[in-house]
Amino acid sequence: MSEGDRLTELAKRRGFFIQTAGSYGGVAGFYTYGPEGAALKANIESAWRDRYVTREGNMEISAPTIMQEEVFEASGHLDGFDDMIIECPECGESHRADHLVEDDPDSTVEDAEALPIPDVEGLFEDHDITCPTCGWELAGEPVEEFNLMFETNIGPGSSDPGYLRPETAQGIFVEFPQLAEYARNQLPFGVAQIGRAYRNEISPRKALVRVREFTQAELEHFIDPETDEPPLWRVEDVVLPLYSAEQQDADDGGVQEITVAEAVEEGIIQSDWIAFYLGISKAYYERIGVDMDRFRYRQHLPGELAHYASDCWDAESEIDGDWIEITGFAYRGDYDLVKHEQYSGEEYSVFKQYDEPVTVEKPTVDPDMGYLGPEFGSAAGEIVTELERLAASDPDAFEGDEVTVEADGEAYTIPVEKTGFEIEEVTESGEHITPHVVEPSFGVGRMVYTVLAHAYETDEVDGEERTYLSLPPEAAPTTVGVFPLMDKDGLAERAKEVANQLREAGLEVTYDDSGAIGRRYRRQDEVGTPFCVTIDYDSLEEETVTVRERDTTAQKRLPIDELPGTLSALRDGDATFDEF
Amino acid sequence: MSEGDRLTELAKRRGFFIQTAGSYGGVAGFYTYGPEGAALKANIESAWRDRYVTREGNMEISAPTIMQEEVFEASGHLDGFDDMIIECPECGESHRADHLVEDDPDSTVEDAEALPIPDVEGLFEDHDITCPTCGWELAGEPVEEFNLMFETNIGPGSSDPGYLRPETAQGIFVEFPQLAEYARNQLPFGVAQIGRAYRNEISPRKALVRVREFTQAELEHFIDPETDEPPLWRVEDVVLPLYSAEQQDADDGGVQEITVAEAVEEGIIQSDWIAFYLGISKAYYERIGVDMDRFRYRQHLPGELAHYASDCWDAESEIDGDWIEITGFAYRGDYDLVKHEQYSGEEYSVFKQYDEPVTVEKPTVDPDMGYLGPEFGSAAGEIVTELERLAASDPDAFEGDEVTVEADGEAYTIPVEKTGFEIEEVTESGEHITPHVVEPSFGVGRMVYTVLAHAYETDEVDGEERTYLSLPPEAAPTTVGVFPLMDKDGLAERAKEVANQLREAGLEVTYDDSGAIGRRYRRQDEVGTPFCVTIDYDSLEEETVTVRERDTTAQKRLPIDELPGTLSALRDGDATFDEF
Repeated sequence: MSEGDRLTELAKRRGFFIQTAGSYGGVAGFYTYGPEGAALKANIESAWRDRYVTREGNMEISAPTIMQEEVFEASGHLDGFDDMIIECPECGESHRADHLVEDDPDSTVEDAEALPIPDVEGLFEDHDITCPTCGWELAGEPVEEFNLMFETNIGPGSSDPGYLRPETAQGIFVEFPQLAEYARNQLPFGVAQIGRAYRNEISPRKALVRVREFTQAELEHFIDPETDEPPLWRVEDVVLPLYSAEQQDADDGGVQEITVAEAVEEGIIQSDWIAFYLGISKAYYERIGVDMDRFRYRQHLPGELAHYASDCWDAESEIDGDWIEITGFAYRGDYDLVKHEQYSGEEYSVFKQYDEPVTVEKPTVDPDMGYLGPEFGSAAGEIVTELERLAASDPDAFEGDEVTVEADGEAYTIPVEKTGFEIEEVTESGEHITPHVVEPSFGVGRMVYTVLAHAYETDEVDGEERTYLSLPPEAAPTTVGVFPLMDKDGLAERAKEVANQLREAGLEVTYDDSGAIGRRYRRQDEVGTPFCVTIDYDSLEEETVTVRERDTTAQKRLPIDELPGTLSALRDGDATFDEF
Repeated sequence: MSEGDRLTELAKRRGFFIQTAGSYGGVAGFYTYGPEGAALKANIESAWRDRYVTREGNMEISAPTIMQEEVFEASGHLDGFDDMIIECPECGESHRADHLVEDDPDSTVEDAEALPIPDVEGLFEDHDITCPTCGWELAGEPVEEFNLMFETNIGPGSSDPGYLRPETAQGIFVEFPQLAEYARNQLPFGVAQIGRAYRNEISPRKALVRVREFTQAELEHFIDPETDEPPLWRVEDVVLPLYSAEQQDADDGGVQEITVAEAVEEGIIQSDWIAFYLGISKAYYERIGVDMDRFRYRQHLPGELAHYASDCWDAESEIDGDWIEITGFAYRGDYDLVKHEQYSGEEYSVFKQYDEPVTVEKPTVDPDMGYLGPEFGSAAGEIVTELERLAASDPDAFEGDEVTVEADGEAYTIPVEKTGFEIEEVTESGEHITPHVVEPSFGVGRMVYTVLAHAYETDEVDGEERTYLSLPPEAAPTTVGVFPLMDKDGLAERAKEVANQLREAGLEVTYDDSGAIGRRYRRQDEVGTPFCVTIDYDSLEEETVTVRERDTTAQKRLPIDELPGTLSALRDGDATFDEF
């Protein structure tokens, strides 16, 4: 069984995730998180919020998932958020044309998405590629662009199209003017959002990896590109597993272990801000349980870059031998804010105050209309505009006696004295600047999937094979399972008291009194519960319990009144089980 | 200024909520929570999770917002989730027909939604109701049903319609077979979900009250209606402000203050389960800051009940003189599970084991085909079926020598000895039962709006008018503001240390060093921060700070090292400011 299949089986049986509406046969690309999965996902989101919002002092907002068409006209998604589709004329099935080309055994193409459509159509002819559903030859069939946004209509009628957002980011960008006010117009500032995003995939696949509805955790960090520097010193010694564009060209598959400082110095990572985020993110991945031996940062190849991005790196995790993107780190520049300013007509900039007012020389004109009007008639207005433009772009042109401008395709010569040309001294207190955007964009479902895959372990305990999830205590859905040895003689009552005491201390607790203790351990092992507490007859007399650790199955005897503190410290990583 | 307008102004200025994409003119019914609003909303959701999931031992899941058509065929939303629409032929504007009828000054109709369409059309004629946009007379225009679900299409082509869920509940119901397994097939059990839901309103209005995209927190409690009883004893003395159907008929507007036990005994609340949830929910509303003087539980009138519900009560809060529904408590019976069983063909039931196996007498037949075949030919099969049916429904019919059944419209008489009739003793270990559902369904946005409206206060401080939000410390976006008196002499450094220390203790902290202390207090007052800590020169020497309470503006001097414990206790309601 593949790693993915094994995981999907456990996920369903234990309540991590299932295909939605399975009773109805389900629809590809939609999954429901069961109780364990929802808790794991919530813990991964909490750790993200702690790391990228609270500790970095960023804001967090929550925007709607449906937005009006104008927003996606501006963002470029209406035009450019497409996949290549080919439809089989025989069976009617639609496929991603680029994937069929890449999957073809004769093909050497690795990134067909980057090719122009006619080239892809050519490959179907050259390689006799067939429909994977029915085997029909697809040569000659048209390859088309398919927009991946889910479309709907807002209100009655059909005149107000709306779209389900393809990324949470646009919900932040459109509110920039207001958000800048909340930040008191001080750059840099960051705005985060965790929420649903949608992609109407042609062929969803691989459980939580390629789905049609998913959760993103995105941070948009707005910076002044001229002056704002990230606190690189905080991460300079962090060692990054980098897989650069150059290494990918060399095709040796190997990653380079290199510190943030070195990677910046050697120019492997071009943006200091991207380097900073790769640095702080590595500790986050470790914290939630990504196996660092199955992890790398991969640089985008030049042809692969999104329309808005300059330097771009992905965090990738390995599952079943495939590398999947779990985060994209993109330097989006001023692309989005400029677009929204153009399309909305509102200002998407901040006014940046200089430390001290600056005096600049500003060439101006103040034409004598009493002369221009009679002389040039209806062309006079256009001539004024051109004089203003010329003064700003080439003030030296006004040094002679006459100046010539072109208006409506004709040249006009005007005496300089009639233009009212002058060089004024103007005092400016600041300037309007459009911030650049640095964006780490996390796929929450893919992180959940990675963490489960990397935590999946089997070993042998008491002669039986055991499956367990080696999740970090902070991420595990349940921190502690509480069991009475038997459901009699007051053991259950005492165990329920202990369970409540632990809940009061803020721990996630599962109480279980059914079946043999060994079976109860196995159930908790399979959902990754790091600690189990058993209340036995000695507990009633001596006020102690057995605490058992998941990975080692080691057991210790601990006093009941120390449990809340001990287990909290173990969950928060402030202590290890060995210490007790 | 109305209460709503005052609130909307503060909400925008301070970052609670704004209309989405205001730069583009926005679209009615879509709002974005700014940093303060997102934090307040998250706190209200956390308190809900603590109350309805953790403390009640329920499960929580997370399902997609898009679901396939079959699900909503089964749930009844495709057919019945409609509002009445009327379109003005003059200006083209669409309106809710029932609202126009209710808003008409001559009208005495209070609940036009419950009327049949022809009656509503009649009211347009009788009262000469006009278009509120352009004044055109609407008499004679057709009133139609408008389905409120947002429709989209899943995948390429247009053959797979999907809908944005109108309630989170269906995402739970469709997974019932799997969820019952997670609950080890033991009733009762509860499954909760917090997430987005959608309603394509014809005329959204009143800020967060009637929107097109909103957040619900729903709990579906699956019970055995024959045997499961709620723990009413936990809430029997809770006093409920009830506005029953009877009181509404009497039209005196007054509510009845009555304990849960009395309301059940007097039959005012019909379902014990609904009574239980009204009881535990009252404390929840108080906890998040709903003003109990502007709150009531209103029973649905018979005509108002949803298609699936028997007894139904709403929690309502008063804003601007209007009562708005913030929660619906519905006894949904087995409606949803039966529907999904019918439409999906899967079993939506649990097998309920008897305490002890039960022996029942079961009449059976085992017809002699060697006789029936030759005797009755092709009718023999049908005859067997009818004999089986008769044995089950009327075993006495087999007491004579002959028995007569009707098959394919003809009567056949068969000797009883050829039917193989017998009464067998069968041992049954349990039975399949379809659970009933009790549902408290909370509108999170409406609770946020209520809590803000009820917290909004003004008073006079130092001769100036002050606006503050009297939010409970647990709900407030920020628990504590930390200010250095001046940004010099090491005060800022010490203040930042204190801020970090408080963050480490899990408190939400805002650090502010800009402007006069008075202005910083006002800013925190307006976002409802309950406590502010000022670091001054004495702080550096004596390790004490000034702590100021929001509502009273009272100030106390407290040691720095006690701050984390003191402020945590104040936030959690374990202490009051007076005690220190």
